[in-house]
Amino acid sequence: MDVLEAPRGLNNVVVTQTSIGDVRGEEGFYHYRQYSAIDLAKSCSFEDVWFLFVEGRLPDADERERFLAEIAPLRELPEEVLPALRAVALAGTKPNMLGGLRTILSLVGSARGMAPVYGSPPEQRRADALLVSAVTPTILAALHRIRAGLDPLQPRSELSMAQNWLYLISGEVPTPTHARAIEQYLIATIDHGFNASTFTARVVASTGADVAAAVCAAIGAFSGPLHGGAPDRALDALDAIGTPDQAEQWVRDRVAAGERIMGFGHAVYRTDDPRSLMLRSIAQSIGGPLVDFATSAEQIVVDTLAELKPDRVLYANVEFYAGVVMELCGIPRSMFTPTFACSRVVGWSANILEQAQDSKMIRPIARYVGPAPSQPIEVR
Amino acid sequence: MDVLEAPRGLNNVVVTQTSIGDVRGEEGFYHYRQYSAIDLAKSCSFEDVWFLFVEGRLPDADERERFLAEIAPLRELPEEVLPALRAVALAGTKPNMLGGLRTILSLVGSARGMAPVYGSPPEQRRADALLVSAVTPTILAALHRIRAGLDPLQPRSELSMAQNWLYLISGEVPTPTHARAIEQYLIATIDHGFNASTFTARVVASTGADVAAAVCAAIGAFSGPLHGGAPDRALDALDAIGTPDQAEQWVRDRVAAGERIMGFGHAVYRTDDPRSLMLRSIAQSIGGPLVDFATSAEQIVVDTLAELKPDRVLYANVEFYAGVVMELCGIPRSMFTPTFACSRVVGWSANILEQAQDSKMIRPIARYVGPAPSQPIEVR
Repeated sequence: MDVLEAPRGLNNVVVTQTSIGDVRGEEGFYHYRQYSAIDLAKSCSFEDVWFLFVEGRLPDADERERFLAEIAPLRELPEEVLPALRAVALAGTKPNMLGGLRTILSLVGSARGMAPVYGSPPEQRRADALLVSAVTPTILAALHRIRAGLDPLQPRSELSMAQNWLYLISGEVPTPTHARAIEQYLIATIDHGFNASTFTARVVASTGADVAAAVCAAIGAFSGPLHGGAPDRALDALDAIGTPDQAEQWVRDRVAAGERIMGFGHAVYRTDDPRSLMLRSIAQSIGGPLVDFATSAEQIVVDTLAELKPDRVLYANVEFYAGVVMELCGIPRSMFTPTFACSRVVGWSANILEQAQDSKMIRPIARYVGPAPSQPIEVR
Repeated sequence: MDVLEAPRGLNNVVVTQTSIGDVRGEEGFYHYRQYSAIDLAKSCSFEDVWFLFVEGRLPDADERERFLAEIAPLRELPEEVLPALRAVALAGTKPNMLGGLRTILSLVGSARGMAPVYGSPPEQRRADALLVSAVTPTILAALHRIRAGLDPLQPRSELSMAQNWLYLISGEVPTPTHARAIEQYLIATIDHGFNASTFTARVVASTGADVAAAVCAAIGAFSGPLHGGAPDRALDALDAIGTPDQAEQWVRDRVAAGERIMGFGHAVYRTDDPRSLMLRSIAQSIGGPLVDFATSAEQIVVDTLAELKPDRVLYANVEFYAGVVMELCGIPRSMFTPTFACSRVVGWSANILEQAQDSKMIRPIARYVGPAPSQPIEVR
């Protein structure tokens, strides 16, 4: 039996093939299927790109109409979860939005009798994947409102995904500018190469488990502090800086203390993060003092990091301007990471559907390095 | 950037080191830390082996007493989950015990504010792991009883884990013979090398997520039809066979139809599955017509498979006699796989605690094989 020793953390180990997308770190470029993700964010609706993830192509007008009609009712909270909603929303002294989403999606999976991705018809798993993606914003907004002492709202079928998201949180239909800004953010964050939560979703799907099982697992990985993707932390950093003239000293203090600067640097990009460039431009088109401050602070942080860490390439990452854009659009800070989850669930779902076409379980091995199992047992 | 092409499904790829245990398929031997797992099952209590998984050694008398006192209150259902229990138990037209366990454990994680496994004190994650393991049988039995129209029962602190499990399901304190039979089954199934659910738990833990996130993910993988571990299917096969004289023809029909024979064959063992040998001996010590039938059927199935598939090595696996033993002990068939989950959660928890000592995220890469991302976007 030939055994292959993998590098720690399976670093740079190719585990599967995909037609969903890729990231080219050196070029500052990433794509969804045959299109630049940033081009898609600039010219398409979220729903069109969602269709691209599921079907592999952009829809024509008829397909768009049918897809919108298909997903509209899936946004409604299934009746079976309503009795558990309050207990889940109010659990814990600190709010745990991702934990709450995981709990309710897990219940949706059981309530709807989701089918194993192996051995069931492809239409069934496609429907399960659409349901999980469509209902995620509704669940998150409901948990947020209950926790805030407000009644959850019903999704409105005439609103787009991005409009609905802002409406379900605040109770107000957003301005076209805000809705489009958030829509572009959502499109740009559906997928980003083979990140840890996507890999987790595919491992679970590779056992043949249902879509809810795989997405709940992905949410768990997504909640891990090493996974990344917490735009609220970048805005917390801006708060801590306070004013642009304090930015340089703040960076020097953080670096001297050996801390990471939230919102800067990325595991893959060796140049500007294309998501950050797009979000900066969106923020600047909205404008205001926060944007001016963020732009000045970004330049000072990048320059100071270049001086202090000349061997590293540290640019603003997606979190930095994502936080700014969400703040400008009135999303409460506790809902920044949940907003990210609303888009990423579409990416997980597409990866689960792709994994379901393979039938080989992802199951590596471990090397036992403990004491030899030759000890007699003495019960004391 | 050196990229390593892994075999499909990461087959035989060493992803990590472990001191928890290993399986030696050629020898028909597996172990937990420094002891044979079967020896442990024959001479220890479940709680002693649980301690071994957590601490790396068997307890002395003082340690045992403290450990029992520590876990007894953790068996109680946390108050915060009670309002959601009925909705979860009754969700779906078909019962989904693993889905229900995943939902409630997810809620327990949020309610108790479980800490990320990275960046929090080791005592905190140890306590979270003990809670998840201790409360799992209580959750599963409560879901079962509610679904059956009965009231859930409170765990009794004077009963052992195995006694409690049977009591919580049936409402009756089991006979010593039945309790010990199930205890040995539970000990023998805590862990078994680096199976797919264990790997999933470690992937999620490697992001730094909390114990509940990692265990919920593992339950998802465990629920997949390729994962294996459904002792009820083996007993269903015995039902289908009906009488020993029909066993041979039944096997020939299944093999001719290209079907797998449930309860026979294992991915790793190339000889008798040591769990199966132990469970057969336990079943025979209890005795009765089911045991006689199973023993005859096993021999006929093995002989017929040896004739029909001479290139394969197909012995009864753990599922075959596990189903027989659980049936003899009065466990309803719908609770066979949940019984397995009650022991395996201890194995997942130990793997999560071990993974938490590493700080490298498990994150392989994928190779993009779709069309080149150079397409202009035409919105139609």
